[in-house]
Amino acid sequence: MPDRPAPRPRGRQFFANPGPTNIPESVLRAIDRAAVDFNDAEFVETVYHPARAGLKRVLGTSAELFMYTASGHGAWEAGLANLLSPGDTVLIPESGFFSDQWARMAERLGLRLRKLDADWRQGADPAAIEAALKADTAHEIKAVCIVHNETSTGVTLPLPDIRAAIDAARHPALYLADTISSLACMPFEMDAWGIDCAVGGSQKGLMLPTGFSFTGASAKAMAAHKTAKLPRFYLDWTIMMGRGFRSFVGTVPVSLFYGLQESLRLLEEEGKDAVFARHARLAEGVRRCVQTWAGANDGPQFYCVDPGRRSNSVTAVLMPDGHDAEAVRSIALQRSNVSLGGGLGRLGGKVFRIGHMGDLNEPMVLGTLAAVELALRRAGVPHQKGGVDAAMEYYAAS
Amino acid sequence: MPDRPAPRPRGRQFFANPGPTNIPESVLRAIDRAAVDFNDAEFVETVYHPARAGLKRVLGTSAELFMYTASGHGAWEAGLANLLSPGDTVLIPESGFFSDQWARMAERLGLRLRKLDADWRQGADPAAIEAALKADTAHEIKAVCIVHNETSTGVTLPLPDIRAAIDAARHPALYLADTISSLACMPFEMDAWGIDCAVGGSQKGLMLPTGFSFTGASAKAMAAHKTAKLPRFYLDWTIMMGRGFRSFVGTVPVSLFYGLQESLRLLEEEGKDAVFARHARLAEGVRRCVQTWAGANDGPQFYCVDPGRRSNSVTAVLMPDGHDAEAVRSIALQRSNVSLGGGLGRLGGKVFRIGHMGDLNEPMVLGTLAAVELALRRAGVPHQKGGVDAAMEYYAAS
Amino acid sequence: MPDRPAPRPRGRQFFANPGPTNIPESVLRAIDRAAVDFNDAEFVETVYHPARAGLKRVLGTSAELFMYTASGHGAWEAGLANLLSPGDTVLIPESGFFSDQWARMAERLGLRLRKLDADWRQGADPAAIEAALKADTAHEIKAVCIVHNETSTGVTLPLPDIRAAIDAARHPALYLADTISSLACMPFEMDAWGIDCAVGGSQKGLMLPTGFSFTGASAKAMAAHKTAKLPRFYLDWTIMMGRGFRSFVGTVPVSLFYGLQESLRLLEEEGKDAVFARHARLAEGVRRCVQTWAGANDGPQFYCVDPGRRSNSVTAVLMPDGHDAEAVRSIALQRSNVSLGGGLGRLGGKVFRIGHMGDLNEPMVLGTLAAVELALRRAGVPHQKGGVDAAMEYYAAS
Amino acid sequence: MPDRPAPRPRGRQFFANPGPTNIPESVLRAIDRAAVDFNDAEFVETVYHPARAGLKRVLGTSAELFMYTASGHGAWEAGLANLLSPGDTVLIPESGFFSDQWARMAERLGLRLRKLDADWRQGADPAAIEAALKADTAHEIKAVCIVHNETSTGVTLPLPDIRAAIDAARHPALYLADTISSLACMPFEMDAWGIDCAVGGSQKGLMLPTGFSFTGASAKAMAAHKTAKLPRFYLDWTIMMGRGFRSFVGTVPVSLFYGLQESLRLLEEEGKDAVFARHARLAEGVRRCVQTWAGANDGPQFYCVDPGRRSNSVTAVLMPDGHDAEAVRSIALQRSNVSLGGGLGRLGGKVFRIGHMGDLNEPMVLGTLAAVELALRRAGVPHQKGGVDAAMEYYAAS
Repeated sequence: MPDRPAPRPRGRQFFANPGPTNIPESVLRAIDRAAVDFNDAEFVETVYHPARAGLKRVLGTSAELFMYTASGHGAWEAGLANLLSPGDTVLIPESGFFSDQWARMAERLGLRLRKLDADWRQGADPAAIEAALKADTAHEIKAVCIVHNETSTGVTLPLPDIRAAIDAARHPALYLADTISSLACMPFEMDAWGIDCAVGGSQKGLMLPTGFSFTGASAKAMAAHKTAKLPRFYLDWTIMMGRGFRSFVGTVPVSLFYGLQESLRLLEEEGKDAVFARHARLAEGVRRCVQTWAGANDGPQFYCVDPGRRSNSVTAVLMPDGHDAEAVRSIALQRSNVSLGGGLGRLGGKVFRIGHMGDLNEPMVLGTLAAVELALRRAGVPHQKGGVDAAMEYYAAS
Repeated sequence: MPDRPAPRPRGRQFFANPGPTNIPESVLRAIDRAAVDFNDAEFVETVYHPARAGLKRVLGTSAELFMYTASGHGAWEAGLANLLSPGDTVLIPESGFFSDQWARMAERLGLRLRKLDADWRQGADPAAIEAALKADTAHEIKAVCIVHNETSTGVTLPLPDIRAAIDAARHPALYLADTISSLACMPFEMDAWGIDCAVGGSQKGLMLPTGFSFTGASAKAMAAHKTAKLPRFYLDWTIMMGRGFRSFVGTVPVSLFYGLQESLRLLEEEGKDAVFARHARLAEGVRRCVQTWAGANDGPQFYCVDPGRRSNSVTAVLMPDGHDAEAVRSIALQRSNVSLGGGLGRLGGKVFRIGHMGDLNEPMVLGTLAAVELALRRAGVPHQKGGVDAAMEYYAAS
Repeated sequence: MPDRPAPRPRGRQFFANPGPTNIPESVLRAIDRAAVDFNDAEFVETVYHPARAGLKRVLGTSAELFMYTASGHGAWEAGLANLLSPGDTVLIPESGFFSDQWARMAERLGLRLRKLDADWRQGADPAAIEAALKADTAHEIKAVCIVHNETSTGVTLPLPDIRAAIDAARHPALYLADTISSLACMPFEMDAWGIDCAVGGSQKGLMLPTGFSFTGASAKAMAAHKTAKLPRFYLDWTIMMGRGFRSFVGTVPVSLFYGLQESLRLLEEEGKDAVFARHARLAEGVRRCVQTWAGANDGPQFYCVDPGRRSNSVTAVLMPDGHDAEAVRSIALQRSNVSLGGGLGRLGGKVFRIGHMGDLNEPMVLGTLAAVELALRRAGVPHQKGGVDAAMEYYAAS
Repeated sequence: MPDRPAPRPRGRQFFANPGPTNIPESVLRAIDRAAVDFNDAEFVETVYHPARAGLKRVLGTSAELFMYTASGHGAWEAGLANLLSPGDTVLIPESGFFSDQWARMAERLGLRLRKLDADWRQGADPAAIEAALKADTAHEIKAVCIVHNETSTGVTLPLPDIRAAIDAARHPALYLADTISSLACMPFEMDAWGIDCAVGGSQKGLMLPTGFSFTGASAKAMAAHKTAKLPRFYLDWTIMMGRGFRSFVGTVPVSLFYGLQESLRLLEEEGKDAVFARHARLAEGVRRCVQTWAGANDGPQFYCVDPGRRSNSVTAVLMPDGHDAEAVRSIALQRSNVSLGGGLGRLGGKVFRIGHMGDLNEPMVLGTLAAVELALRRAGVPHQKGGVDAAMEYYAAS
């Protein structure tokens, strides 16, 4: 029998996980309500469609939007299955655990995978993507799939530069982008950036529980869909097009739509630009703190080695050799009730991740950083003190 | 621009929809909480695994259980995709809208469909299933898919009799049963009834919001899974077997597990047999009422013509010729704030459906029936009065 | 050790208690939020003051309004203590349990009580009040205290007629009216009806939990307050006048103000007149039902013998001789999860009370009445069947 | 028209107010439920009485406990009104704003006040109390009223020492103690400390919304009550003794009892001693921080000059001359969404107060302190940096 986990310290948990994320009280309350008939006109006209329209504004698209009762992985699959046929080739440049997962999915769905290896500590280079596409003179590659913000590594890829790379290669491939952990945290403009299929989920910047995911689909994507032959039903866009909901096969998760309505209200009250500026500023404070801990490079380091690609929604911190990230996480949780993300896949034990997305402010970040600094100390991890001060210094000055 | 729907009358909505259903207050409150890390040992050991184990008890199985962030249609697809290969043949005896949908899904996934036509007003006959299987001497049929409780028609099929039919035909086909609207409302015993794959969802008898669905999988199903070649990733059992969760690809919908924990507590406090007896008794009251309205057969009728198959979780009521079920539903909603189910597919306008599943008691049923009787009167639908009295008479006597 | 009460039947409780009452889901959710500083300008300016202003609209007053963290009894005491001095005389015409309580309170606070006896089954007569005041030629009577709607008996007194009686007697007494169970259920116009002190609470027509109560105070009342010498602090108006809140001594119950904001929104969206019309119509259905049960007067009767005074928010039902109201209540609760009010004081066991106030609609009333009719049957109480039908008949026709 | 307050920054508010306080999510959810009949046996026996018994355990008493739908000021009044008669003398040694308020209340209720002046920065001395009582040879003083923890100043008085002082003076006065902001935060033992009347409220260490308050009453208090002649009804103990609830005149605030049940569960799961130790430790971190800010006494100071009396539930910080505490509070709120307490009465603008009671942990405190340090900087208040570091240092070492 497994050991019963120790009870958590009293007080609110600081949830610095890079997904799911903090859900605002008003969003939770909006979700907490009796079920309604998803066909009820009151729901459909005053909640469902307005929320769906708002989600399109967040995505920056006036194209199609398909929603699923599914997590982000379901939306990944929807993108591939609705756009491609068995044996088609996809180019999935490496960025980290999630690009690997998406690639693994592609193979399992019967696609051919052209991987483009890259160092996880910085992610793929647009020039390499351009080169790979130029080399594909037969245009076998039908789609390029990019994880905008690699939640496993805290690396953000430059989506517009990759669009430019595709264009420079004069390659007709579809451009799929996973905005799961970037949407509503940093700029994402599906239409303006020429993205054919944008994949998102409810449980990150949208500040909702896990429960729905979605894909935007450009006109080019819709054209490709017509001939795409991968089998699908639950996630099928054509079936969805035939419904008034233009989304969902089967029942609609009504509760979450009340929550989405409220989270959109919060986002639009604050304003997209202000939301992004807030994320950038709070993230920079986290970075000042991590930079301080790093000291003369014998402390914890940024996992992401390219300063220009450090994510505004999650920071992955690489442990010094011989120190276990899980020990730090466990102490932060057991002693301070602060929940950090762990290292995924090959990064297990090597990094911990500080999520800083969604419903967040200065004291939430500073309380988290303070607890992490305490956990480093308690775990005997070498680090230069003063990380929290450095973050405060930045916040005071900005 | 569409008309703004009229505001609903004050007072609590009576939600007599056959799914989603009434969610108990304590279940809603359990869901209404901050997100937690789905890998947190406290969640995994004290909430997730106990809830998953409880769900297996509800299904009556000690076999495998796979869960999905998906609606019931996703679980249908999971069953087919994990068990079958392109070109495999499935037998889907007709019962109503949902058997048709499942059949349509099978075809879209690349399976060959052997339909067994049946009158929707009573559903397929085990003898016909036996005959169909006997005729399949080459054992081309790999699976028989049955909707236990046809939510569209209010017809319950006799699963043990169908098991007996398969056995009598000495046919090796897998036996899939959709228990979406029967589970936790009427007896369902996956192992005892020899079901290889039981398909269920959160939003009916489990009294939860739409958000997860699941499939039990027998040892025979797991063996079949090993060679099943339909492409899949998001719903793939093998991937799930490799996770500690033994379910879900990607994030786990943590909120709903707190709700599931509470709904299981409610179900087990009351006791499975008591839950079924309550549903049966409340449903019989509904039937006494409908029987009364029917009068000398010029009023509304049971859609289900076989008294032995009338469902204990939903009653479909067929309108007299020339009367529109939607008018009755609209009046019930607009005047009394009672939400009834409508006719699905070809039954649109012809039937309305009274859901009576989940968190239900005498006054909820009687208030609903009274509002429906008022709506019949207000809509000018011929009917014999006294339906509510007949239900009360039955409740008083039982 | 007391017996553990039996668990309630599943399904939502029908709460036909005449207070506290049904609280709308949206009001409960509004209350369910983190504490805020009651001095925070955001709260004070966007929640507190607008809600207080809305409450004045509900009371029909532009005079002063004082609020208390207290139940209705606290507001009764506030009215007396802020307006009167030790030894002052008050006239409290009898209407039932609550007029008796108010009278008992007056005596305990050191006032002299002039009671005006009346039959509880109809309450005091304005003519008798006029006579009593005329007889008080020395104007010893400083205040007349009337319970607008006697929750214990279901009798509503005609406040404007009593105002006319006071005027006809040319008597200077202050006019205090308890609108606890009438406010937001039936017309109440503090200013237009010449009421000097209106006493209300949160937990009835305002559809909130028990938690605050309040008194409106006319200019005449405020003048009287200046010389009123009963000791008081917690409930003192002068202290309140010195605060920005103009209410509350000590902390402000912030949560309830978020609820009040929402309940006012609901009331004003529907409109006062519509709210009253709804209560009147639903109450009439209850009365048609009770009238039917009464049969040839050997069944349960209206406790209130004056048809013009039967309350639109609560109906007290008198049991036939030899039958115990508590048995009916207990069966309704244990078998049907319907909570009725019991008989108060000398009416214990003799009457049960059906509350029909606040967030209520047809099926809530009909489900309740059906359960009561079942309980009468189950308890072996003689009654004429068909009560629910009579209510339905009325609703259909109106 | 008043200016609309600026919207708060996103992210959860840090509520470092010394009352009301942080309410745990599970307590809020417990309160968020439909109303029930307060006479319902299920409520009375499984919720009400067990919660009341738990509250007595928290108070450390096996004597009587009376509860009120009222705030703390109501319980103060209940204590005085139930124990004393007009013209009785009470000794209320000065400790700060709240001792002054209680004294003001006593006078307004018709009592004679013997004040014992003391410096607010340390509160009254037991020796002075002893002297005052010894001087009262005629035993005119009927009660000594002490505020255990002066929420306005952050000074905790030594209740056992004051008991010893009363005993040393061989004075028969009743001993009333206000434990409003100490209960469930620091040791309080009504019986063991010989307290005759302990006054508490829901909204501090009990982690509930404002809504009920209470007084414990020793046998000596109950004896005194028999002859106490101050008028009272709503708060009268004798009336309460006649009810099964042994508390409340009028309706019972049922919702809060569900919350109390949960807060007691949390407190008893953690254990009283652990709760007190947690408060002491977290408070010491706050003190290390304030001590650092103070620098060479040109920065903010402890308002409480006696280190042994610095409160474990609230710290009042005195601004350097020429700096406005309200500016700091406003910046903390507007920039960081941290809510601090302001200075009360004559301390307005001179102090701000950091509440640290109830549902609290390290990162909540550290995030708060960081925001305050930022606010000092932003407001241009001289202070020595490194306060947060000092708190972290302490937490790491303890």
